[in-house]
Amino acid sequence: MSSTTAGQVIRCKAAVAWEAGKPLVIEEVEVAPPQAMEVRLKILFTSLCHTDVYFWEAKGQTPLFPRIFGHEAGGIVESVGEGVTDLKPGDHVLPVFTGECKECRHCKSEESNMCDLLRINTDRGVMLNDGKSRFSINGQPIYHFVGTSTFSEYTVLHVGSVAKINPAAPLDKVCVLSCGISTGLGATLNVAKPKKGSTVAVFGLGAVGLAAAEGARIAGASRIIGVDLNAKRFDEAIVILAKKFGVTEFVNPKDHDKPVHEVLAEMTNGGVDRSIECTGSINAMISAFECVHDGWGVAVLVGVPNKDDAFKTHPMNLLNERTIKGTFFGNYKPRSDLPSVVEKYMNKELELEKFITHEVSFSEINKAFEYMLRGEGLRCIIRMDA
Amino acid sequence: MSSTTAGQVIRCKAAVAWEAGKPLVIEEVEVAPPQAMEVRLKILFTSLCHTDVYFWEAKGQTPLFPRIFGHEAGGIVESVGEGVTDLKPGDHVLPVFTGECKECRHCKSEESNMCDLLRINTDRGVMLNDGKSRFSINGQPIYHFVGTSTFSEYTVLHVGSVAKINPAAPLDKVCVLSCGISTGLGATLNVAKPKKGSTVAVFGLGAVGLAAAEGARIAGASRIIGVDLNAKRFDEAIVILAKKFGVTEFVNPKDHDKPVHEVLAEMTNGGVDRSIECTGSINAMISAFECVHDGWGVAVLVGVPNKDDAFKTHPMNLLNERTIKGTFFGNYKPRSDLPSVVEKYMNKELELEKFITHEVSFSEINKAFEYMLRGEGLRCIIRMDA
Repeated sequence: MSSTTAGQVIRCKAAVAWEAGKPLVIEEVEVAPPQAMEVRLKILFTSLCHTDVYFWEAKGQTPLFPRIFGHEAGGIVESVGEGVTDLKPGDHVLPVFTGECKECRHCKSEESNMCDLLRINTDRGVMLNDGKSRFSINGQPIYHFVGTSTFSEYTVLHVGSVAKINPAAPLDKVCVLSCGISTGLGATLNVAKPKKGSTVAVFGLGAVGLAAAEGARIAGASRIIGVDLNAKRFDEAIVILAKKFGVTEFVNPKDHDKPVHEVLAEMTNGGVDRSIECTGSINAMISAFECVHDGWGVAVLVGVPNKDDAFKTHPMNLLNERTIKGTFFGNYKPRSDLPSVVEKYMNKELELEKFITHEVSFSEINKAFEYMLRGEGLRCIIRMDA
Repeated sequence: MSSTTAGQVIRCKAAVAWEAGKPLVIEEVEVAPPQAMEVRLKILFTSLCHTDVYFWEAKGQTPLFPRIFGHEAGGIVESVGEGVTDLKPGDHVLPVFTGECKECRHCKSEESNMCDLLRINTDRGVMLNDGKSRFSINGQPIYHFVGTSTFSEYTVLHVGSVAKINPAAPLDKVCVLSCGISTGLGATLNVAKPKKGSTVAVFGLGAVGLAAAEGARIAGASRIIGVDLNAKRFDEAIVILAKKFGVTEFVNPKDHDKPVHEVLAEMTNGGVDRSIECTGSINAMISAFECVHDGWGVAVLVGVPNKDDAFKTHPMNLLNERTIKGTFFGNYKPRSDLPSVVEKYMNKELELEKFITHEVSFSEINKAFEYMLRGEGLRCIIRMDA
């Protein structure tokens, strides 16, 4: 964190995606200094999330290349731009793909975290301030990704997309709170809010779903039913892993002739108290809603659907006092709320180690893509210094 | 309330529906004494609700005749059956079409009012205790309706369907709290829970919708937008009436080329904070959901849909942190909560007089049906003693 770099262009390594679906290439890039209301971070650890892979594959998404992906990470502030008062060089931070300007109606609402200014934008590859990229190679601009681009030793973010956290927190663990884990955890703790002793169904047993289960475990749910269509998720090793997140029972809809919401209703004397949908499949969304108990059941949708999907149910399912809610980033406001999630880890309420199943050096970043494409493990930490 | 009638059959007047859609006939009926866990009430005032008319018309409903309709009323306990300890002769009460046994999972849940034992059952025309009717004419049983049958000078109910209220409350006013008014009021106060200063849309400006608006007025909403397809609702007299319930703006979807949720979004900088759907039309339900603001909007469904309706929306509307909830009887537990609603009227927080637009004597009960069929007014009080 030498002050000698402040205001200077930094040359460092970054993993550049030159083309959709092609392996990333470690390149030397130039990272411009932060402009007004921006900060430049030194990234120490980053991890890979499905969203990176999704936009790297660019099947149906707007292709924007060359680009530096990455949005789950932990780092340290290297320098700050004009007007930045909340952060200073040396602060430990988590970059976040969606921001909190603290000025708009959403930021001022107690209920929303969908900041008007800094809400996730996957099509924009440049900084808000001047519409330009801070990354270049021999003068050629390289696009940003969701305002974070953490697959680089240094990166520039809007100050509203940076959460300052306890400097004692190990960044190689808490970096996973930047996206997926907080999304699942918050869906349960902030939105579904199961009571102690209740029954919770989680649809999709990937990292986000298991984080939702972890939330249910923390909330004291007595039964956590994991639902997944992927037979692989029921392998002995995965089942042992899922049990660490509090999952007590497993249901594969393919093993049953009747619809899964009926299977769950039979298992639970009429329906689960809460359900959390973490797959993005429209059928799972509908099942997740229809499996909650009348009178008090709440279904929470986390997974991102396809463009042409339609959520369809009989309105009597609603009239019988069921609730359906959607959530985005677990309803956490990035700057205001993430520090307390880190504290949950620090005081051992929340366990993060079990999410981290792989670790690779930055030079091996493409291995992390391979693990995810094969559906192996949950999170792979990429060490930037190795 | 002579104790001489306790344990005896009472002969009294009742308005009997002999056939679907045919005028009621005032007959002398015999009302048997209450059995175990039942109470017999002397009804002083009753009012007419759409649900009575709906099952009297029996278009598509299970026809069950001869039957005594009526479920909004105020009365006094005449006698009680074995095991009844909560009520005694002389108590002032409101009969309710859905009960509260205080023993089942729903009654024990803080969130539900959908009692397993006494939940509304429109197909059952007899008492739970012995599967028989307490009404007869020359030995011919006359069916009950939703456990209340208040179009009779005396009627028998399960104790769980009777709310004991403040004896100082005027029964000719608070009788309207038995059903529709509490349904709309509770949908807003208990389920939508608008904050002070917020914007609320109410779909359907009948009695239930105006009760929902009254709830929004009590909660301190700054804008209450009434939406109705029926041009009649925008007659000067109705507009003046609706303003008394706090409605500040009126929208008839037929006056606009674009979908009504877009009209509302334009009027409110992105959407209303809360919406309450009181029509039962599936299109209104979908519009009521899609017109709420992302990040915090909550839509509450009150109206009862048709059997074959499908609620359909794009799941992104949910993911953007919107909530949809259904409610039944405004989420009020009849015995536990109605007494406090009566108190809201007693302390002048809630205004009931403005709901009462007509009054007829019992012998003129068919006039009340005519007013409702013509869509005239809101509530017609039927005086049993006249």
